[in-house]
Formats: sequence, structure tokens, C-alpha cells
Amino acid sequence: MSMLPKRVHIKEEGPREGFQIEKAPIPTAQKIRLVDALADTGLGHIQVTSFVHPQKVPGMADAEAVVAGITPRAGVHYSGLWLNQRGLERAIATGRLDLEGKLTLYASDAFLKRNQNRTPDQQLAAQPELIAMYQAHGIPVRTGFVTAAFGCNFEGDVPVERVVRLVGEMRAIARAGGEELSLIGLGDTMAWATPDRIRRVVGAVQDANPDVALSLHLHDTRGMGIANAFAGLEMGVAHFDAAVAGLGGCPFAAHAGAAGNICTEDFVLLCAEMGIETGVDLERLIECAILAEEIVGHPLPGKVKSGGSLAALRARRG
Amino acid sequence: MSMLPKRVHIKEEGPREGFQIEKAPIPTAQKIRLVDALADTGLGHIQVTSFVHPQKVPGMADAEAVVAGITPRAGVHYSGLWLNQRGLERAIATGRLDLEGKLTLYASDAFLKRNQNRTPDQQLAAQPELIAMYQAHGIPVRTGFVTAAFGCNFEGDVPVERVVRLVGEMRAIARAGGEELSLIGLGDTMAWATPDRIRRVVGAVQDANPDVALSLHLHDTRGMGIANAFAGLEMGVAHFDAAVAGLGGCPFAAHAGAAGNICTEDFVLLCAEMGIETGVDLERLIECAILAEEIVGHPLPGKVKSGGSLAALRARRG
Repeated sequence: MSMLPKRVHIKEEGPREGFQIEKAPIPTAQKIRLVDALADTGLGHIQVTSFVHPQKVPGMADAEAVVAGITPRAGVHYSGLWLNQRGLERAIATGRLDLEGKLTLYASDAFLKRNQNRTPDQQLAAQPELIAMYQAHGIPVRTGFVTAAFGCNFEGDVPVERVVRLVGEMRAIARAGGEELSLIGLGDTMAWATPDRIRRVVGAVQDANPDVALSLHLHDTRGMGIANAFAGLEMGVAHFDAAVAGLGGCPFAAHAGAAGNICTEDFVLLCAEMGIETGVDLERLIECAILAEEIVGHPLPGKVKSGGSLAALRARRG
Repeated sequence: MSMLPKRVHIKEEGPREGFQIEKAPIPTAQKIRLVDALADTGLGHIQVTSFVHPQKVPGMADAEAVVAGITPRAGVHYSGLWLNQRGLERAIATGRLDLEGKLTLYASDAFLKRNQNRTPDQQLAAQPELIAMYQAHGIPVRTGFVTAAFGCNFEGDVPVERVVRLVGEMRAIARAGGEELSLIGLGDTMAWATPDRIRRVVGAVQDANPDVALSLHLHDTRGMGIANAFAGLEMGVAHFDAAVAGLGGCPFAAHAGAAGNICTEDFVLLCAEMGIETGVDLERLIECAILAEEIVGHPLPGKVKSGGSLAALRARRG
């Protein structure tokens, strides 16, 4: 019996993950153009921008302007990213985004220290405050996320049991705050996953949590992205983050930050060829990928934007 | 029971596949430098160059000079490619290459017509002449290759039974000529494979030919390369062609010929993380990938050359 999902839900993170790392400023109008084009492909969820400190991430200083400029399409869920209360308040103030609360734990203590300057206990202790913050704004908390769930550049391999424990802790914290997590995200933040590791971690989390859906946030930093997504699909995972054209990555060897998400159109081709529905028009998505590459002005790592879809070749013959 | 091979044999095709498509001429000394560096990584087989018509493929006009310039390492198998008797004679004349005969059939009639201007019957009829040519030079014929075994841009999907039939025909032709094929290569020439298609075709060929080894020649044109290699490994396939840095591909969307083989170092990382021996020193191979990118002067699609190995990160902690 196949565990393959009938339908996969893709969260398009290209505009947020991708434009953030670009050195040259991307004009606001171009960001809006790409988001609107993506919304016409059939993608159900687009993460539009990031409400982070404009001095720290100058490329995201136009977050409000981007959100104000898009033309919302019916049925598309538009979201944003924030890292603190100030960011959340900015997202709320736009009045145009679908807001959801998320809890986050780290499977690497070393990365948590580097990234948040917190101990694991401090990170756990911060989650109830987060829930209270969301509840004060009437925002549901349904998602939990485990960062560095498959390994960490600063700590090495991550034991599977640790990931399972963190998911249990997150769910308990949510419940104690009157919330119920229904989606658990596993992040391969530093690209340590391989398909067999995906199976082990996803399998263990599923066994301990048969009542929640899983999502995978995969980086293609070491070229394993699509193979890992395939392994996730075969475990029944039906929620994936992805970035059009592989935005966020850069193929130059000299570019150490070459850490893009899996490429949306490459992943959509995989799903389409395996008979899994995505709701996405691959030909339109390929046009978006080419547009994204034009906008950033340098090559992006996605393949199908050059290689083309198989469906188009079949149609040409038919 | 795992079908994973204990050890995988990689045929490095970067110098041949990669330099062939470059528009700017690559200095002969640089080609030699890369081949020699590759030979120091532990790779057991390097396809050095292509003996094709110098007017048709100017980038390969220095084939003899490259072969004459390399410093052969013990234990490394150096090979070349040729498409006709003249090419074979040039390869023989170098006196420095390991020569093997190969039979080739096409799983796509349309592609055979385009590529060779032959019908399937003509292609079949040409194989005994090929065997005779090799035998006249005392060269063994052990390999058969099926081109476009997973699909074709000009013909669409390829039925699995056709591939099985072609393998049977090739083996019979070889036997009739007094040869026994021991390795059957399946080529995903135009990148139609997906992991489930790999399973179906490899499985069917294995079922009908339990006594031969299979090899996979995979192109990453649609981003499925490593996922396809993973599927092949899980079917027990132990022979793979690959190209350092993904030489032969180009990430620009505008570059329609972005059809590189799977990237050797990305594939070696996958094997290493799954506990499959390759005999290759991944850190040295990454240095070769960076060298290859310097030589061609544009970004190449491999990921691990930027992302780095996991073993190096583990060692830094230890």
C-alpha cells in the first residue's frame, strides 16, 4: 500500500526567503509583480515578506509596501514572517495577511545559542508567552516547528529521540495554553538531511504523533532537497515549503550562503509525474521562475525553468 | 532486507561531458590539470575526452594532447568516447587508454532517427559490425547501453517492456558475436526519469536479467538526478556515471542545454551518508569541483562544492 498523499500543500517562500539574501536592492514593484504572478499559478499559500528590523535586513524594509501593493487572489493564503511582537504588530497592521501563531523549538542547543542566545530551558519558557501574545491578538496557534531537526553545522548529528521529545514538549505547552497543534514542521535548516534520515525522523515523529500532520522545510544546500522531498512524500508527508526557482540559493561555489529551499517548480514536476495533486499550473510556475531570475539578475538553482516540463513535451506530440 | 550496494563504482564523465559544451575554448593544460586532480580523489574511472570530429566539436580537438598530457595514477581506469571507427582508431593510437567496446540501442525511435538517422532495424543491424570492429582490435565488448530508457523529448514516455526487449536483443546480439555483456547501462538521456520510474524500469530489467549488473547514466536537467540515483541505489544499482561539479550543466534559465549529469560530489555525499563506499575522498573531490568551476569561468550546478561535506563539520567538532 502506498503512503503517498493524494494532494500536497505547498507554502511558497520564495519572495520571503529569496529576496532577503540579495545584496542588490530589489525594487518593491518587482516583488509585488512576482507575488501576484505566483498567486495566478494555483499555489495556495504564499509567504509574502518578513517583518524584521529594517536596519538589520534592509532588503525587507519595504515589507508593508509589498503587502499593500499586491492584488489578493481569492483562495490564496498570504502570510508573513515575524520574529517578535513588534514584527507581529506590523503584520497585523497591514490588515491584509492571514495570521497564524507558531511555536519553535531547536533540536540543536548550539544553534539555539548562536541564533537566539538562549538555552533550551529559556526557549521552552518563552513559548507560553508567545501563545499569550497570539491569544491577545485573537490569532490561532496551530503550528509547531523544530529547527535543525536533521543535524546542525555547529552540533553535528541530531538524535531522532530528541526531535520526538521536542515535538511532545511543544504539543504539551500548546495544550497547557489552551491551544492544539495540528501541524508539526520539521526544518532541515542547515541541510543535514538525506532520504534515509528523513525516513527515520519523520517515521519516529509520526509514530509518536499519529494525530498531527507533518510538514517539511528542506534546504537544498547539499543537493539532497528533491530526494529528501521524495522520501517525505513516500512517508505520507503532505505539506512542504518551497521557493520558486530555488530563490534564496546561489550556485556560485564562492557564495557560502547558498542555502535555498527546494525549488517549487522542480518539486511540482516531481509531484505531477507521481500523480500527486498540487493544484499548481506548472507552465505558469515556470514563467514565475524565469521572472524571479530576471528580477534578482543572477542565475538561480532551479532546474525545470531551463529543462521544461514533461507535460509540455507530451502535449506538443499529442 | 536492504538492497543497497556495499560499494558503488563511479565513472567520472565531467572532463568529457563538461568541456564539450563550453563555448569558450578551455586550455588543454587546464583539462589535464582537472583530470590529474580527479585521479587523486580515489575515483576509479575517469572518462578523459571524446574522439569526435574536431570541426564538429572544436572543444574536443585536443583529445590526443589531453591524453598525452595526463599523469596516469595506478588503479585508475582512464577511458575515452568515440562514435565511429575513426574515433576508436584515434583512441587506440594514444596507447594510454583502457578501451572497452559498447553496444548501444535506442528506446526512442524518434531520437534514434534524429541522432543517428537510422531506423531501429538499422541500429540493430549495425551492432554485429561494431562487435567485429572491436574484435578486430582485440577489445572486449562487455557493456550494452540503452539510450532514452526513461522517456524522450521527441517521443514522450517509453514503455518499460521496450527497454526490457532492447536489453534482451543486445545480449543476444553480443552472444551471437561471441561476446557476453556483463553491464547494462540505462541512460536517462533527456531527463524523463523520476524515482518511481527508475524503480519500474530498473526492476523490470533486473527481473529479466538477474545475471548482469546495471549502471545508471542520469541527467539532472529537471532536478531529479540525485533523487533518481537514490532510487537506483535502493534497487541495488552499483554503477553510476557522474560529472564533477555537475559539469555539462548550466544554471541559467536561458541556457537550453542545461543538461548536466548528476554531480559527482553531491552523489558521493549521498553515498557517504548512507554508509555506501565509493573509495572517493570527498574533500579532495570538492576541491576538484571548485577547480572545474574556475576553469569554465561560470557557475556550475553542483551543491556540495558550496555547502561543504557533513564529515568535515563533524570533524571540526571532534
